[in-house]
Amino acid sequence: MKKLWQKQWKLNDTIEAFETQGDLVLDQKLVDADVYGSLAHAAGLFKIGILSPKEFEMIKIGLKEILVLAQKGRLILKMGDEDVHTKIENYLTKHYGEVGKKIHAGRSRNDQVFVAIRLFTKEHLLNIWGNLLALTDAFVVFGKTHETTILPGYTHMQKAMPMSLGMWAGAFAQNLLDDLTLLKAAYTLNNQSPLGSAAGFGVPLPLPREYTAKLLGFDSVQENPLACQNSRGKIEAAVVAALVATYQDVTKFASDVLLFTTSEFNYFTVAPELCTGSSIMPQKKNVDIAELLRSKVHLFLGYYVQLVSVSSNLISGYNRDLQDSKKPLFESLDIAKNGLEVATLLVKNIKPNKEVIAKAITPEIFATHHALELVKKGMSFREAYDTVGKNLSSLSQSTRIGLGNTGFSTLEVKMKKETALYEQENNKFHKTLQVLMT
Amino acid sequence: MKKLWQKQWKLNDTIEAFETQGDLVLDQKLVDADVYGSLAHAAGLFKIGILSPKEFEMIKIGLKEILVLAQKGRLILKMGDEDVHTKIENYLTKHYGEVGKKIHAGRSRNDQVFVAIRLFTKEHLLNIWGNLLALTDAFVVFGKTHETTILPGYTHMQKAMPMSLGMWAGAFAQNLLDDLTLLKAAYTLNNQSPLGSAAGFGVPLPLPREYTAKLLGFDSVQENPLACQNSRGKIEAAVVAALVATYQDVTKFASDVLLFTTSEFNYFTVAPELCTGSSIMPQKKNVDIAELLRSKVHLFLGYYVQLVSVSSNLISGYNRDLQDSKKPLFESLDIAKNGLEVATLLVKNIKPNKEVIAKAITPEIFATHHALELVKKGMSFREAYDTVGKNLSSLSQSTRIGLGNTGFSTLEVKMKKETALYEQENNKFHKTLQVLMT
Amino acid sequence: MKKLWQKQWKLNDTIEAFETQGDLVLDQKLVDADVYGSLAHAAGLFKIGILSPKEFEMIKIGLKEILVLAQKGRLILKMGDEDVHTKIENYLTKHYGEVGKKIHAGRSRNDQVFVAIRLFTKEHLLNIWGNLLALTDAFVVFGKTHETTILPGYTHMQKAMPMSLGMWAGAFAQNLLDDLTLLKAAYTLNNQSPLGSAAGFGVPLPLPREYTAKLLGFDSVQENPLACQNSRGKIEAAVVAALVATYQDVTKFASDVLLFTTSEFNYFTVAPELCTGSSIMPQKKNVDIAELLRSKVHLFLGYYVQLVSVSSNLISGYNRDLQDSKKPLFESLDIAKNGLEVATLLVKNIKPNKEVIAKAITPEIFATHHALELVKKGMSFREAYDTVGKNLSSLSQSTRIGLGNTGFSTLEVKMKKETALYEQENNKFHKTLQVLMT
Amino acid sequence: MKKLWQKQWKLNDTIEAFETQGDLVLDQKLVDADVYGSLAHAAGLFKIGILSPKEFEMIKIGLKEILVLAQKGRLILKMGDEDVHTKIENYLTKHYGEVGKKIHAGRSRNDQVFVAIRLFTKEHLLNIWGNLLALTDAFVVFGKTHETTILPGYTHMQKAMPMSLGMWAGAFAQNLLDDLTLLKAAYTLNNQSPLGSAAGFGVPLPLPREYTAKLLGFDSVQENPLACQNSRGKIEAAVVAALVATYQDVTKFASDVLLFTTSEFNYFTVAPELCTGSSIMPQKKNVDIAELLRSKVHLFLGYYVQLVSVSSNLISGYNRDLQDSKKPLFESLDIAKNGLEVATLLVKNIKPNKEVIAKAITPEIFATHHALELVKKGMSFREAYDTVGKNLSSLSQSTRIGLGNTGFSTLEVKMKKETALYEQENNKFHKTLQVLMT
Repeated sequence: MKKLWQKQWKLNDTIEAFETQGDLVLDQKLVDADVYGSLAHAAGLFKIGILSPKEFEMIKIGLKEILVLAQKGRLILKMGDEDVHTKIENYLTKHYGEVGKKIHAGRSRNDQVFVAIRLFTKEHLLNIWGNLLALTDAFVVFGKTHETTILPGYTHMQKAMPMSLGMWAGAFAQNLLDDLTLLKAAYTLNNQSPLGSAAGFGVPLPLPREYTAKLLGFDSVQENPLACQNSRGKIEAAVVAALVATYQDVTKFASDVLLFTTSEFNYFTVAPELCTGSSIMPQKKNVDIAELLRSKVHLFLGYYVQLVSVSSNLISGYNRDLQDSKKPLFESLDIAKNGLEVATLLVKNIKPNKEVIAKAITPEIFATHHALELVKKGMSFREAYDTVGKNLSSLSQSTRIGLGNTGFSTLEVKMKKETALYEQENNKFHKTLQVLMT
Repeated sequence: MKKLWQKQWKLNDTIEAFETQGDLVLDQKLVDADVYGSLAHAAGLFKIGILSPKEFEMIKIGLKEILVLAQKGRLILKMGDEDVHTKIENYLTKHYGEVGKKIHAGRSRNDQVFVAIRLFTKEHLLNIWGNLLALTDAFVVFGKTHETTILPGYTHMQKAMPMSLGMWAGAFAQNLLDDLTLLKAAYTLNNQSPLGSAAGFGVPLPLPREYTAKLLGFDSVQENPLACQNSRGKIEAAVVAALVATYQDVTKFASDVLLFTTSEFNYFTVAPELCTGSSIMPQKKNVDIAELLRSKVHLFLGYYVQLVSVSSNLISGYNRDLQDSKKPLFESLDIAKNGLEVATLLVKNIKPNKEVIAKAITPEIFATHHALELVKKGMSFREAYDTVGKNLSSLSQSTRIGLGNTGFSTLEVKMKKETALYEQENNKFHKTLQVLMT
Repeated sequence: MKKLWQKQWKLNDTIEAFETQGDLVLDQKLVDADVYGSLAHAAGLFKIGILSPKEFEMIKIGLKEILVLAQKGRLILKMGDEDVHTKIENYLTKHYGEVGKKIHAGRSRNDQVFVAIRLFTKEHLLNIWGNLLALTDAFVVFGKTHETTILPGYTHMQKAMPMSLGMWAGAFAQNLLDDLTLLKAAYTLNNQSPLGSAAGFGVPLPLPREYTAKLLGFDSVQENPLACQNSRGKIEAAVVAALVATYQDVTKFASDVLLFTTSEFNYFTVAPELCTGSSIMPQKKNVDIAELLRSKVHLFLGYYVQLVSVSSNLISGYNRDLQDSKKPLFESLDIAKNGLEVATLLVKNIKPNKEVIAKAITPEIFATHHALELVKKGMSFREAYDTVGKNLSSLSQSTRIGLGNTGFSTLEVKMKKETALYEQENNKFHKTLQVLMT
Repeated sequence: MKKLWQKQWKLNDTIEAFETQGDLVLDQKLVDADVYGSLAHAAGLFKIGILSPKEFEMIKIGLKEILVLAQKGRLILKMGDEDVHTKIENYLTKHYGEVGKKIHAGRSRNDQVFVAIRLFTKEHLLNIWGNLLALTDAFVVFGKTHETTILPGYTHMQKAMPMSLGMWAGAFAQNLLDDLTLLKAAYTLNNQSPLGSAAGFGVPLPLPREYTAKLLGFDSVQENPLACQNSRGKIEAAVVAALVATYQDVTKFASDVLLFTTSEFNYFTVAPELCTGSSIMPQKKNVDIAELLRSKVHLFLGYYVQLVSVSSNLISGYNRDLQDSKKPLFESLDIAKNGLEVATLLVKNIKPNKEVIAKAITPEIFATHHALELVKKGMSFREAYDTVGKNLSSLSQSTRIGLGNTGFSTLEVKMKKETALYEQENNKFHKTLQVLMT
C-alpha cells in the first residue's frame, strides 16, 4: 500500500520489515485512539474552514465505520500498511475519495502518533488507577478484619518485634496511596494535548488547539510544539516509573506471601484455585501467582531503562529511535493493569493460620517491650537494653503490646477522597469520547 | 568503639570493613540531619516525661556541640564507629553521661536513619528545585531574547521545518516545568515523618509523633510504622526518577549544543571560559561541559536501577540490603544540583551565530508551508504535498512563516507561581530548623 | 485441557490468564525445540529400558507428526493449554495412548523447558554469529575499498586529526570481533545439557545424560542438577550482554551515519531504497533505518536489566519468577539477528561523497602533525605544541599524514579463522538435529 | 596549575569543579598505572630516537620518584590539577625540566588514560579471579564435607525433592566456574594495548607498539587506533557484566543463607563473629553480611546500565561523556573483590544444624521417588504420578534417594586447571611490572 510519503523510490523489503513488523502489532491497539484523534482534528479543520460541513460529515462517517470494522476484528494491519495512521488515511481516501486527502492538512504523523498514544495511555492509566484503589481497598478490608491478630514482625529476616496483620496490610494500603501520588503526576503530564504541534514546529494554520484539546478531554494544551516532541520518551518514562513504584509494593507483598506460605512458616494458606501443581512432584501445591507478581517490578524496571536510555543523547525534534518507546510503554500498561487485578484476588484469598501464628509469638520478640518497661520506671534505655539482653531466656510474653496507630481511620478518609476523584476523572474521560463520537 | 548492640562477641574485621567502610563516608554527610532528628526525638521524650527538663537541656547542649564540631571538621567518622548514629550517641554518653544512654528510648536506628535521610533529601531537593527554576528562567530569558531568530527545525537529523530560537529554548523551559511536577510529587512522599516508627513496628510509648513531625518541618506523619520501613528504596527511587526526567531534558539540550557547535553546523558559539582544549591537538576548543551534561541522565538511570532492584524481592520490614540505597541517592542528589547550575551557566553563555543560522534557512524547509498555502486555496493536502514534492528545486523562501504560539506568556505565569511556592517551602524549611536549634 | 499436575481443584480463570497468556505466544516458538528434547529424552528412556523398542518407535512417530503439524501452522497453543510441554504430552497421550503417559518419566518440566530454551537459543546464537561475521566482512570490504580516503576524525564532536575511511570501517570490524569473544563465551555456557537434571535435584533413574547430551549436540553435560536450575536467568543474561556489546558497536556506527548524512556534514549518501519520507514534509529523505539501529542497544539493555533483576534475590531451585525471563531473551535474539542483517545492508549502501569529504580536510586538523614534525627536529613536544598553537592560522595541509596501521591484514587472518569455526559449529548443529530426527 | 592545553583563556571555576572534582578522586587510584604506562611510552620514544638515553634515564628516575611519593601518600591530586596525567607531566617538567616537556610526544591523554585504566582493571580482575577461585574452593570443601547430608530441595519456595548439602554447595562451585568463562573473556578484551593509538587516529611517528605492549604485559596490540577509542565503555561493560554474572550466584547463595538461618527454618547457624545485633532489640543476632552480599548484584547492574547507556548514541572517537564510565568501573571492581572475600568467609563459617535438617526430611518430598519406583515396575509415569498423588498421606521416607552425580570429580579437575592458569597469568603480570620498573 502506498506510504504517505511515497515518491520515486520503493523501500527495500528487509528494511521495511525491520522498521514496521513489530510496530504494526502495537499500532493495532491504537485504532480507536487514532480515530478519536482524527475526528477531533477534522473538527478543528472544519472550525477554521479547511473542511466544508459536508466534508467533515463524510470524514466522521468514515471514521466511525473504521471503528466498527476494528471492533469486529476486520481492520487488521499487515506488512506494507506502514502504520495505523497511513492505514486509516488510505481507508478514507479509498472509500470517501478527496476528503481522505484533506484530513492530514495541518498535522503530521508526529502529533497524530502522540495524540493516539496519550489517549491510549490515559485510558490504561485510568484502569490502573481504579485497580490500584481496588487493591488498596482489599488491603484495608483484610487489615481491619485481622486488625488484632498479632504476628512477628521481621527485620533482617529474623523475628524482631510483634506487629499485627492490621499493621501488615495497612502498610501496603498506605504505600499504594503514595504510589497514587506518582501515578497522578504522570497522568497530569500525559493529559496535555499535543494536537496541532504537527512535526514539532507548528504549522501556519490557525488551528484551534484549545478546542480540539477539549474535544478529546485533555486537561490543557501543550503549547510549545517542540516541547511536545521533546517530551516523547519522557512522559512514557514517568508513567512507567509510577508503575515501578506501585509494583515495588506488590513485590514486597508477594515476597511476604511466599515466605508466609512455606511449610516452615505456614502463617498463611492461599485458596487452592489460585495455586498450581508440579508436572513431576505429585505432592506440590505452589503459590506461583505470588512468584509471578513478585517478578513484575523487574519487567517495569527494564522497560523504564529502555524508555530513558533510548530517548537520551538525541537532539531536539523527532528521531525515529522513539518508535522503540511504544512497546515498553504498551507492555507495561498491560501488565500493570492485570497484575493489580490478580494481586487483589490474592489478598482476598489469603487465610491466616491463626493457631500457627499464635505459636510463633515467642517471648524474645518482646525484649524491646520489656526494656521500655524498665525505661518507664526510670532506667536509661541502654542499661535497660543490657539488662534485658542478659536475661533473654527468662522473658515472658505477658507485656502489653501497644502496637501504635496503624492509621486506618486516616486511610479511609484518604480512600474516600481518592475514589471520588478517580470516578470523576474516569467518567469525564468516557463521557468526552462518547460525545466526540456522536 | 562499642556498637549499640555489642554483646559477647566481636565482629570480624573484614566483615566490619565490608559492612561499614563505604557507609561511613556517606554518614559523614548526615551529621547535621541526625542532630536535628535526635533533638526532635529528645523533645518528644521530654514532652512525654521520659526525659526531665534538665536531661533534655543537656542533650540539647550536647547535640549543638556536635553540630559545631562537625562544622569545624572535627567530627570525623572512622572505621570502628559503625555509623553516624552510634557515633553521636556515644559522644553524648561520653561527655554527658547518663542522658546519652537515655536518648535512644522509643526509637530504633531504623527510624533514626530515615529521619536523617529524609531531612538530607529534603534539603537537597529544595536546592534542586531552586536550580531547576533558575535553569528554566535562563531558557525563558534566552528564548525571549532570540524569539524571532529563525533556525531550521530537525527531524531524523535532517532539516525539516523552520523553528525559532524562542521555540527551541521555550521547549526546554516548558518541559522543565513538567519535571517539576514529578519533583514535587517525590518531595511530597519524602516530606512525611517516620520518627516514632522505631524498628518498623512502633513502640509501646505514647510518642508525640505529630509534635516531632512539626518540629522537623515534615508535612505529615507517616502513620503506619511498617509503611515507613516498606517505603525505603521506594521514596528514594521516586526522587531519582524525577531527576532522570529533569536530565532527559538536560541531555537533549546538551545534545543540541554539541551538534550546533560543530564547525559544520556552527549555529552556536560557547564562551571560551566554559571550554577546554586537548593535550595533543593545539587547535582544539571543546564544549566538553555539554558532554558532561549529556552524560548525567545515564548516571541517574543506573542509580535508579540500583535503588529499585536492590529493594525488590525483599520481605516487609528492614533488610540491610537497603543500606546500599544510600549511595545512589546521595550521589544523585549531589550531581543533580551541580549539573543544573552548570547547565544554567551554559545557557547564559551561548551566542547564536546569526549569519550562519540565517544561511541555513534553505528554501526546501518551507515545503510544508507552500503545501499549506495550496491547501488554503482549496487543494487537498495530499495533492498539495505531491505538487510541492515535485517542485522542490523551485521553492522560494518567501512564505510567511507563522511559527505558532511558543507559549512564553503561559510559561511566565507558571514560573511566577512556581517560584513563589518554592520560596515559601524553602523558607519554611530553613526557619523550622533554625527554631529547632534554639 | 488437563494440566500435567491437575488434581482436585481447578485454576481460577483470571489467574490462569495472567500466568499463561503471554507465555503461550513464546511457547509457540519452542515446538520444534521441545520435540527435539523429547525425542532425546525418549531415546534415553529406551536406552535404560523404561521404554520398549515399540514404545520408543511410537513416540518418535508422534513427535515427528507434531513437527509436521507445527510447520503447517496447525499446532496452535491457546488459553487452557498451559504450555507447549503439556500440549505435546497431551497430544501423544491422545493419539498414541499409554506411551504418552510414559514419556515424562525421569524428567520435569524444569529440565524440559531448559532443553528447549537452550536449543532455541543455540540456533539463534548461531544465526547471530553468522550475521555478525557478515557485518564484519561488510566493514572490511568497505574499509579496504576506501582505505585511503582521508576524512576528519572527531573528538568532542570537533574536528581533531585526519583519519581514513579504512580506519573508520576497520574499527567497527575490529570491535565486532571482540564482541564475538563475548558471544562465544555465552554460547559455551548455553551449550551444556541440562537434560536429566529434572526438577533441579536429579532423579533416582540411571538416565544416560552423556548420551542424550550428544544426541542433542550439546558440548557437555551440566552435571550438578541444582546448577542447572541456578543458572536460569544467568545464562540468558550472559547471552544478552553479548548482544549489548555487539550493539554498542552498531549504535556507534548508526550515530556516525546519522551525523555524516546530515545536509551540514554530507559525507555519506545512503541509497534511497533504504530511506523513508515524511507524511507532512514533501522534501524529506530520512535515514531512519540508522535511527532504528541506533536505538536497539537500549532495548537489549532493558532486557538485560529484566533478566538480572528478575532472577536476583531468589533462593536456589526453580522459582516461577523465571518464566518472565523468556520474553526478554526471545525478543533480544530476534531483534539482534534482524538488526545485524539490516546493518550489513546499510554498510553496503553507503556512498562516501568524496569531494565533500576532501573539502572538510581543513588545515587545522594537521596541527598535531606539524607539532610532531618539530619534535622530530628535536623540539620538545610541549614547545612544539605551543608553537603550532600560536600559528594555527598559517597551517598548511601538506604534512605527510601517516595514519598508522589500521590492521586489515590481522583482521583478515582472524576473520578466516572465525568463519571456519563458525561454519563447523553451525554445520554440526544442523547435522545433529537431522540425525536425531531420522 | 597549568593545564596541558592551556592557552589564552581560563576555565570558569564552577565548570572546572563540575568537570574534575569527582574525577580527581578516581585518578588518585591511577597514579601507579599511569607511571607504568608513561615509562613504557618513554621506552618506546627512546627506542625510536625521540628521547636520548640520558633523557630516558631522567624520565625513569622521575617516574620512580613519583611512585615512591604516591606510596607515601605525598602525591595528592587536588582541584586545579586537572587529572593525574597532567599532574605527572607537570611534576616531571618542574623537577626534570625539558624532558618533562618531551614525554607527551606521540601520545594523547586518550591513549594514556586507556593504558592506565586497562592496567588498573587488569590488576583488579586478577584479584577477583583469584578470589572467585577461592570462593569456589570453599564451596567444594563445604560440599565434600557435607556431601551426604540430605536436606529438602525447594521449588516455588515449597519443599520439592531431597537434595544434599553436597549438591547445594556444588551447584555454586559449578556456576562460579561458568562465571569464570565470562570473566576471562572480559579479561581478554581488556588485555590489549591501546598505547600508540594517541587521540584515536594514530600519529605520524614510528611508535613501536608491539614493544611497548610487551613491556606492559599486554597480550596483544589493539591495532586500529579508532577501535581503541570506540571500545571505551564497551570493555568496561563486559567486565562489569562478568561481575554481574558472578554476583548472580552470590545473591542466590546469600538468599539461601538468609532463609536457612531464619528461626523458622534453622538449617544453618552462622558464626557470631560474622553477625551483628540491633540498636533497639536486645535479642537480635542478624546475618546481615548475607544481606549485604545479596544486594551487590544490583549495584553492578546499575553500574552496567550507566556504562552502556552513557556510551551509546555517541559518534566515533572520544567524547567526554566517557569520563563518567570511570566511577562505575572502579566501584564495581572494588566491591567485587571485597565481596568475594567476604562470601568465602561466610561459606567457611556456616554450620549445618544436622538434627533440624534431618527432621525437615518429611515423607512427601519422596513422592516423585515413589512414583518412579512404580515406573520401574512398568507403570506409566502419569499413572504412577496419580497413584502417588492420591496416597500422599501414607508415603514413607524409606525410598532409596539416589541423588545423582553432583559432579565434584569433574569440578576438581577443572579447578586444578583454572588455578594453574590463574597463577601463571597473575605471576606474569606482577613480574612484568617488576621488570618494567628496574
